[in-house]
Amino acid sequence: MKIDGIPYRTIWLADDGAAVEVIDQTALPHAFRVLRLASSAEVARAISTMVVRGAPLIGAAGAWGMALAAREDPADAALDRAAEMLVRTRPTAVNLRWAVERLRRVLGRSPVSERAEAAVAEAGRLCDAEAAACEAIGRHGEALVRRAWDGKGPVNVLTHCNAGWLASVDWGMSLSPVYAAHDAGLPVHVWVDETRPRNQGAALTAWELARHGVPHTVIVDNAGGHLMRRGRVDLCLVGSDRVAANGDVCNKIGTYLKALAAHDNGVPFYAALPSSTVDWSLASGDDIPIEERDPAEVTRVSGLGPAGEVIEVRVTPDGTPAANFGFDVTPARLVTALVTERGVCAAGPEGLRSLFPEQAAA
Amino acid sequence: MKIDGIPYRTIWLADDGAAVEVIDQTALPHAFRVLRLASSAEVARAISTMVVRGAPLIGAAGAWGMALAAREDPADAALDRAAEMLVRTRPTAVNLRWAVERLRRVLGRSPVSERAEAAVAEAGRLCDAEAAACEAIGRHGEALVRRAWDGKGPVNVLTHCNAGWLASVDWGMSLSPVYAAHDAGLPVHVWVDETRPRNQGAALTAWELARHGVPHTVIVDNAGGHLMRRGRVDLCLVGSDRVAANGDVCNKIGTYLKALAAHDNGVPFYAALPSSTVDWSLASGDDIPIEERDPAEVTRVSGLGPAGEVIEVRVTPDGTPAANFGFDVTPARLVTALVTERGVCAAGPEGLRSLFPEQAAA
Repeated sequence: MKIDGIPYRTIWLADDGAAVEVIDQTALPHAFRVLRLASSAEVARAISTMVVRGAPLIGAAGAWGMALAAREDPADAALDRAAEMLVRTRPTAVNLRWAVERLRRVLGRSPVSERAEAAVAEAGRLCDAEAAACEAIGRHGEALVRRAWDGKGPVNVLTHCNAGWLASVDWGMSLSPVYAAHDAGLPVHVWVDETRPRNQGAALTAWELARHGVPHTVIVDNAGGHLMRRGRVDLCLVGSDRVAANGDVCNKIGTYLKALAAHDNGVPFYAALPSSTVDWSLASGDDIPIEERDPAEVTRVSGLGPAGEVIEVRVTPDGTPAANFGFDVTPARLVTALVTERGVCAAGPEGLRSLFPEQAAA
Repeated sequence: MKIDGIPYRTIWLADDGAAVEVIDQTALPHAFRVLRLASSAEVARAISTMVVRGAPLIGAAGAWGMALAAREDPADAALDRAAEMLVRTRPTAVNLRWAVERLRRVLGRSPVSERAEAAVAEAGRLCDAEAAACEAIGRHGEALVRRAWDGKGPVNVLTHCNAGWLASVDWGMSLSPVYAAHDAGLPVHVWVDETRPRNQGAALTAWELARHGVPHTVIVDNAGGHLMRRGRVDLCLVGSDRVAANGDVCNKIGTYLKALAAHDNGVPFYAALPSSTVDWSLASGDDIPIEERDPAEVTRVSGLGPAGEVIEVRVTPDGTPAANFGFDVTPARLVTALVTERGVCAAGPEGLRSLFPEQAAA
């Protein structure tokens, strides 16, 4: 996607081939900064501190982390250690494990002397494929946005968190259909959940949509139910961090509450994701490990202060205990359909198998 | 309730009888400050800026505002103007209109020369009655908390916003049963929704519970559904800003989402409120006007900054549009029961009439 006319991805190999570069998502929306990650350890730290985040993007970062690891030491034992370090950074999204294991497998088949080069090629292929998958999600999802259009006013889409191009290599998951519809001339307006505690909606989704000129309104996470009861949401579009084989959708904490409200009000609720997000080995979403993060993300809020510097303020009394669950699981029964790179399917084992028959055989 | 051993209400007549004094709720939790409101206009401003907030408390403040108005000018026309100014400050809670109209009615029956004195007496009676109602809500609600106790670990209560003693004259609505259960020796733990945009949970409920020694954990508004799915919530207790005659519960934005999650997981969901919160003339919650407040409450967050001063930070990109709905309506079908000063009843016209037969006749 373009920023001020210049095409960007969220992650790329540096010109000198000795590092990867990423958009620093902890600096957005108040500053646009590109960070150079020169080692697999720096990539791991960038994932755990959420410099890069979003299921497809942390998969891509994991792949590039393995590519840097192969430059550092291409021996099997060293690659195993790097893979473990990278996979351990975040437990919930399955794309990370999927991408790291894919790189590890490819490198295992290469002579040690050729691994560094092979890893760069494979990480590049993986990123291109993920970008193409997200672009295809946009094409398939656009039809759903179009279906919700009354032919007059704007289609009102509600989205949670950031599953836009910043969360993927390019194009995005939930926002790819929005961009496709907008670019095709459909009037689209997006209700953007701010998405506490880290405000990825208020900070990243609002920034993305503004850069692309898509009309949007930020709301607190509490507001979506009220809007749906009042008929002001035509469809919900969210991404996913892991989809179980039964169609349960794990996504940013709070997604389940919006799915309940959509169900209660007859509003279609779609999860959009590349198939790298599906955990074919997992029978139910209830078995997905839910990351617990630092309680300080709840008790403190980061933003632009009066002096124009990014600072944190504490919103609770001193010493207040807090808990910080990163994700929740929306049962498949509340998901109208999944939007994947191969098309739209019911959120269930049959639907998934109809689009990905090779996984049923596996 | 006590603060550091000293008993307080949230509003009281100043010793000199020429003003009312209130706890400044915009300063909490970072500072405890008492504000003197010396005119009906100052009371109106305190209500609209949320120096005082919470349905029963803004009712009480409206009554004291009328008492000050009667000191300023006890003539009928002046009292009518003051009543209109006070009622217009906030549209959703019905207690404000109820209290102001009650004072206006009583003053209308008094000789003009006696109105100032009569108003003080009536406002005092109203506050005493509201405090007694909230204390009774605690007694009735304690039984519900006890019923949810497994006899071993703590009872986990989830609450939204602040419907504690700070929201009322004393004791509180949703928190009155919590205090009663805690004081009776029941182990209670409260999950406190932070309650964006104004963070009344993170700021006020956490402060209240800590002062009283009730174990609690602050969570983002997105987390409650996940906790309920994991069996970590035994009951939900919320307050209300207006209950319609059909049992629909209007409360802080986001309440509806928690009620949906409770319903989906078989968790009891109770709304606790004094009967001054019931709008007997309103057939359905859908007719309740929903206050829209300044979008800056969404795009900015107030808290304690690095230098120990309360400041605001902006969480969105510069110029991001935002919408700020203050309340939502939870349909009666999602409310397990209402807890009132006269006992517990089904959320519906029959339940309400069984406890308040005089209203059915009205």
